[in-house]
Amino acid sequence: MEGFGVHTSMWTMSWDRDGAERAVAQAVKYKMDFLEIALLNPGGVDTAHSRALLKKNKMRAVCSLGLPEYAWPSKDPDAAVEFLKIALDKTAQMGCEALSGVTYGGIGERTGLPPTQTELDNVARALSESAKYAKSLGLLFGIEPVNRYETHLINTGWQALEMVEKVGADNLFIHLDTYHMNIEEKGIAQGILDAREHLKYIHLSESDRGTPGAGTCGWDEIFGALAAINFKGGLAMESFINMPPEISSGLSVWRPVAPSEAEVMGNGLPFLRNKARQYKLI
Amino acid sequence: MEGFGVHTSMWTMSWDRDGAERAVAQAVKYKMDFLEIALLNPGGVDTAHSRALLKKNKMRAVCSLGLPEYAWPSKDPDAAVEFLKIALDKTAQMGCEALSGVTYGGIGERTGLPPTQTELDNVARALSESAKYAKSLGLLFGIEPVNRYETHLINTGWQALEMVEKVGADNLFIHLDTYHMNIEEKGIAQGILDAREHLKYIHLSESDRGTPGAGTCGWDEIFGALAAINFKGGLAMESFINMPPEISSGLSVWRPVAPSEAEVMGNGLPFLRNKARQYKLI
Amino acid sequence: MEGFGVHTSMWTMSWDRDGAERAVAQAVKYKMDFLEIALLNPGGVDTAHSRALLKKNKMRAVCSLGLPEYAWPSKDPDAAVEFLKIALDKTAQMGCEALSGVTYGGIGERTGLPPTQTELDNVARALSESAKYAKSLGLLFGIEPVNRYETHLINTGWQALEMVEKVGADNLFIHLDTYHMNIEEKGIAQGILDAREHLKYIHLSESDRGTPGAGTCGWDEIFGALAAINFKGGLAMESFINMPPEISSGLSVWRPVAPSEAEVMGNGLPFLRNKARQYKLI
Amino acid sequence: MEGFGVHTSMWTMSWDRDGAERAVAQAVKYKMDFLEIALLNPGGVDTAHSRALLKKNKMRAVCSLGLPEYAWPSKDPDAAVEFLKIALDKTAQMGCEALSGVTYGGIGERTGLPPTQTELDNVARALSESAKYAKSLGLLFGIEPVNRYETHLINTGWQALEMVEKVGADNLFIHLDTYHMNIEEKGIAQGILDAREHLKYIHLSESDRGTPGAGTCGWDEIFGALAAINFKGGLAMESFINMPPEISSGLSVWRPVAPSEAEVMGNGLPFLRNKARQYKLI
Repeated sequence: MEGFGVHTSMWTMSWDRDGAERAVAQAVKYKMDFLEIALLNPGGVDTAHSRALLKKNKMRAVCSLGLPEYAWPSKDPDAAVEFLKIALDKTAQMGCEALSGVTYGGIGERTGLPPTQTELDNVARALSESAKYAKSLGLLFGIEPVNRYETHLINTGWQALEMVEKVGADNLFIHLDTYHMNIEEKGIAQGILDAREHLKYIHLSESDRGTPGAGTCGWDEIFGALAAINFKGGLAMESFINMPPEISSGLSVWRPVAPSEAEVMGNGLPFLRNKARQYKLI
Repeated sequence: MEGFGVHTSMWTMSWDRDGAERAVAQAVKYKMDFLEIALLNPGGVDTAHSRALLKKNKMRAVCSLGLPEYAWPSKDPDAAVEFLKIALDKTAQMGCEALSGVTYGGIGERTGLPPTQTELDNVARALSESAKYAKSLGLLFGIEPVNRYETHLINTGWQALEMVEKVGADNLFIHLDTYHMNIEEKGIAQGILDAREHLKYIHLSESDRGTPGAGTCGWDEIFGALAAINFKGGLAMESFINMPPEISSGLSVWRPVAPSEAEVMGNGLPFLRNKARQYKLI
Repeated sequence: MEGFGVHTSMWTMSWDRDGAERAVAQAVKYKMDFLEIALLNPGGVDTAHSRALLKKNKMRAVCSLGLPEYAWPSKDPDAAVEFLKIALDKTAQMGCEALSGVTYGGIGERTGLPPTQTELDNVARALSESAKYAKSLGLLFGIEPVNRYETHLINTGWQALEMVEKVGADNLFIHLDTYHMNIEEKGIAQGILDAREHLKYIHLSESDRGTPGAGTCGWDEIFGALAAINFKGGLAMESFINMPPEISSGLSVWRPVAPSEAEVMGNGLPFLRNKARQYKLI
Repeated sequence: MEGFGVHTSMWTMSWDRDGAERAVAQAVKYKMDFLEIALLNPGGVDTAHSRALLKKNKMRAVCSLGLPEYAWPSKDPDAAVEFLKIALDKTAQMGCEALSGVTYGGIGERTGLPPTQTELDNVARALSESAKYAKSLGLLFGIEPVNRYETHLINTGWQALEMVEKVGADNLFIHLDTYHMNIEEKGIAQGILDAREHLKYIHLSESDRGTPGAGTCGWDEIFGALAAINFKGGLAMESFINMPPEISSGLSVWRPVAPSEAEVMGNGLPFLRNKARQYKLI
């Protein structure tokens, strides 16, 4: 994981043959270094097709997901591990480098109370086993803090650090996301500062999940801090447009957050790449 | 509504005799121009006590609330109006100037889909009747856009403007909140620009609802835009600390977002007041 | 003066036939609404050529300058008026809309002391006569506050306002510049707030006079404030690259502040236009 | 050099007995970790008095200066070394830890042209000899890039880095200043990124040299980058008010940049200390 990539949400939310071909073609067109594949339904992926497609196009990839309720680690770590092992197998079969995202729970998981020790212990157990399995496959394994509305478990870089240290697996990394940092951190660079020792991946997502550069994120703070910690990991642009209702609903996106894919790719992408170059990150 | 005030959440979430006395004493101590009373349980308020207390301390006040599920206007505008009339009566009885907040729905109301025309029509009907009733009591009546996770109905200044224009009542105003704007607006000043004709109140709340000045909100953008539109309304500091679990849960606050009340009042309050003075708003 | 334009410094610092043709061709290519002509040597301009060139290309224009030492109004208002009348004549002959810039002194004029009442009175007298003459020609006439190192006379929007009010001519306007505001104003929008009643033109110039979007200027604050005051005047991009030594010296630019014209036009221009569109200014 | 200190400009510009006593008393009152002494006239300092005063008050100190024209290294490196040796002697005699500032030239030194190789070689020679002499006294020796109007020699962190590497002395360090960085750097954190290996001291000075927190400096970017590089050096607040005309003139300050010392100490100091604490720098 290094260089500048993009989340497939720009072009497809279903990683079937059609979606994969469309997304890879676009990623090549926009000269991406890698693609982040949303592994919403790991079992259904045609991994041989994806592997060949990625290889043919020399496109590196990482996978990401959130867990379905029956496999939430806080409640059932064994079910979580079972689910994650399948996802890790698929990740490896496609030739991807890592599995990351809300690997510690569901997007939208909230009990209405702060996380309990039991929940955190369960999460740590599931992550520990999954990280070990990932290692056996030669994969990195990440956790992505998300905002308070999307989980009650891990909202900040600091909390992610605590979990990574609790688990203690050397292939477990922190994956930040500027959209969530903008809500949760005391200064948008704070999550980068707290997570720095384990930070290998970051979603570059605007404050409204629309066009990067046209929201409230403090991009100079973000890129300055990344440069200052000598960040060498993956920079992944993320924007949520043209989504099917079930995905919009999970993300609570009720209106188009950008006018078009053309605007995101025509204005947002150059904005982010220029900033990354300004700070010598690419 | 004008000057610099504070949401009672700093000191109490229950507006009973004890809570009211504590909050008013603190508001006086910190030289607030007004107090925002969270009217979570309108029926239970001892309005005579509040009125006397406010009057004795020469403390102006506004009330705010979100609606309980049985009174959500999107589904049952009549029940909403019934609930809001009681809240408006209490507001008037206490001698307050306005009722505002999520008066158009519940905090956390989401159907999983974008707002439908029927929902918006229902909301408009409830707001129209409530605004009329408010006017008969000499009250202003406000609507506060909140972020996508707290409602699917009105997230931005622009959407609030559309609703205000749809309703067309001259005592209906827009009440913005910097915490929500930081998530929803294309540039944090954008909501101020869009809502300007009807903007009479703003919550000054940090990006994590903690200490103002120690988060990601672009305060110079906010205050600069307020000054530029010649804003004359109320500036209300808001921070959520020391809350009972049922309130934390509604707001999805799972950790202390500020170390102490002392820090919010000792650092956050001077920060906001200095900025308001710098931009000649107070 | 309205729309989005550019200072000719991008392409030439000498407004001779060659320079004018190159600059107008580029301005057309980049779809500029107007061009700002640096009138460094008013007497030497072939106004008939310029007028025909601008007309043929349907390119509107404004002129700007700083005064040579023998014509500094603070010391010799009569010499200043004489110089400015020639410049205004040339401006009118070319068919331009306004003359602006450091029309109240020299770029680099400093006595080592704060401005004296006599100096300010002299400046006011020269501006008053020149504004009257400009009016007789149907021209607007502007003053541009510049930073403390480039003049001791007018550094802020507030000081420009005082001068405009002192002079009291209805065709005299304020011309701000973000590069100078970044140094002088208490919050970069403050100059816009102070000058608003008379603000008709603004230089969009980055903090180091290099590529817009790659410096320290708070662009969202600037554009948000412009939108909030309903700014209808001219937005002029300015960047100083490829300059002859005598100009660099006057501006104290000792190194290339941008790698190339291509970078300024390829990255800086889209950045500014996107921001101007985001805030509905163009 | 570590902790949070202040430039004596807050209280005196002349380091005589009276000035020193007043400044040290104030620094103690405001719980400063160190004081920066402006060594404008090194020869005239009563070092025994200063040493005793600092020791008695347990106040650490560093000295800073700019060179008089007869001792500009670019033109006369020998004269510069002679002057700097006296200043270094005085610095050592007072028990201070370092001498820094515009030790490579005059404040206001400009030839009207970019620095020549000869000038830079002369500067390097003077710095090399002076650093060696400083080392013999157990002192650190710093260079402070200042903006294009105050020198044509070293304006950015990158240029300072080049000079430090050219000189190659292990007690030579870079001293940044946010006021100058705001004008010169491509993103205010860029100077910190470029200078990081040699950065031991930073002036925290607002964009107009007035009250910190009330200007255009991007403080979160600054403190975030300092935290990210694990900055352990000295943080020195600097603001220029109540200055004698000869100093104002050198700094081109023509108006009061803050209403009072009380405002700088009452609002600016807490602002900076809160930010430094937020980013765990003090």
